[in-house]
Amino acid sequence: MQHLDHQQIVAMPSRYRAQFINSLSGFKSANLIATANSMGQTNVAIFSSVVHLGASPALIGFIMRPDSVERHTLENIKQTQQYTINQVNDRFWQAAHQTSARYLRDECEFEQCGLSTTYLKGVTAPFVKESQLKYALTLKEILPISHNNTLLIIGEVTDVICKQSAIKNDGYIDIESLNTVTISGLDSYHISHRLSRLTYAKPHVTPNKISLNGE
Amino acid sequence: MQHLDHQQIVAMPSRYRAQFINSLSGFKSANLIATANSMGQTNVAIFSSVVHLGASPALIGFIMRPDSVERHTLENIKQTQQYTINQVNDRFWQAAHQTSARYLRDECEFEQCGLSTTYLKGVTAPFVKESQLKYALTLKEILPISHNNTLLIIGEVTDVICKQSAIKNDGYIDIESLNTVTISGLDSYHISHRLSRLTYAKPHVTPNKISLNGE
Repeated sequence: MQHLDHQQIVAMPSRYRAQFINSLSGFKSANLIATANSMGQTNVAIFSSVVHLGASPALIGFIMRPDSVERHTLENIKQTQQYTINQVNDRFWQAAHQTSARYLRDECEFEQCGLSTTYLKGVTAPFVKESQLKYALTLKEILPISHNNTLLIIGEVTDVICKQSAIKNDGYIDIESLNTVTISGLDSYHISHRLSRLTYAKPHVTPNKISLNGE
Repeated sequence: MQHLDHQQIVAMPSRYRAQFINSLSGFKSANLIATANSMGQTNVAIFSSVVHLGASPALIGFIMRPDSVERHTLENIKQTQQYTINQVNDRFWQAAHQTSARYLRDECEFEQCGLSTTYLKGVTAPFVKESQLKYALTLKEILPISHNNTLLIIGEVTDVICKQSAIKNDGYIDIESLNTVTISGLDSYHISHRLSRLTYAKPHVTPNKISLNGE
């Protein structure tokens, strides 16, 4: 086992450190966040920082760097208060990665990356047609993280679109059956293989493996 | 494809909604957060919300519910300003899940769940010996999320301990080779199978697959 101390971490070349530190948090979610501005011009970009905040109300967060390529996403969310989050699967993971390129404001990432839009009545932001689990959100709060000038964007889930067969009896969604991918580091994509679901943990009782339906 | 609207989501029974909403963010990181109080009594609990915040400075966040079983973790972090994050792998994923049981304050989760501690000079919090990628953090900020009374705990990475062979030439850490697991929903554990690493995305250029070493 190698030990790297604070001085060694600080001394790393910047690109090396970016790869290294981005590997520490473990596997990351792979999602496309899609928006439209008030004129209806669309934007889509990949994010690996989407995180569950709570089920009641249904709140989802993600981290955004205001000075990075994602700025069109932020501007559009501020304008319309709406956005969609679309799980990336193994049929369009390379197109999803390509959305991280620095396209100009008037270039359409959907078109440039070979992705398609689909819409829901009442939601101004587009969904990614190719995604099999996607949802619309209403902006609740933008929380600044002062230590590195990033933002935690918090939204409430308003509409969910999902392949019906993936929703199990107890509400669990089998995202492995949707071929949802996961990210490690900055650029590595992975599919998953389930070990098992486990029973709710109680003190002094060994957790048991349970079926996909939670039984 | 099934469409569930806001009314249908709000009307879900609470346990069903917890499973459902917890599936939306995609695959989650699986980490044990370990702490000690000022008397040296240890605590360890699993978290699926650890998220990368930035590489320079090296900041990692995680979401905590103050009223849940994780409260000993929070108290200890407030007392000592230190904690460790330890990636869960496929050799102790069931023991890691078991740490989510509501143990009493004076019960030792390490002992109860069959996990071992290891220490580093200068770090009061224990590391999980069984983990092959783990790091110590110093608390930087506790950011309240008012909408659901959760907290974003922000720490700076001070020391990293990692199996040397997993660190690649460009700083990427091959966490798949460490058998790091990922979580979906509340209780499903998965190992990964790499599709590929991809080149840095540039407009109008199709991304290429690259080797594990980033070449």
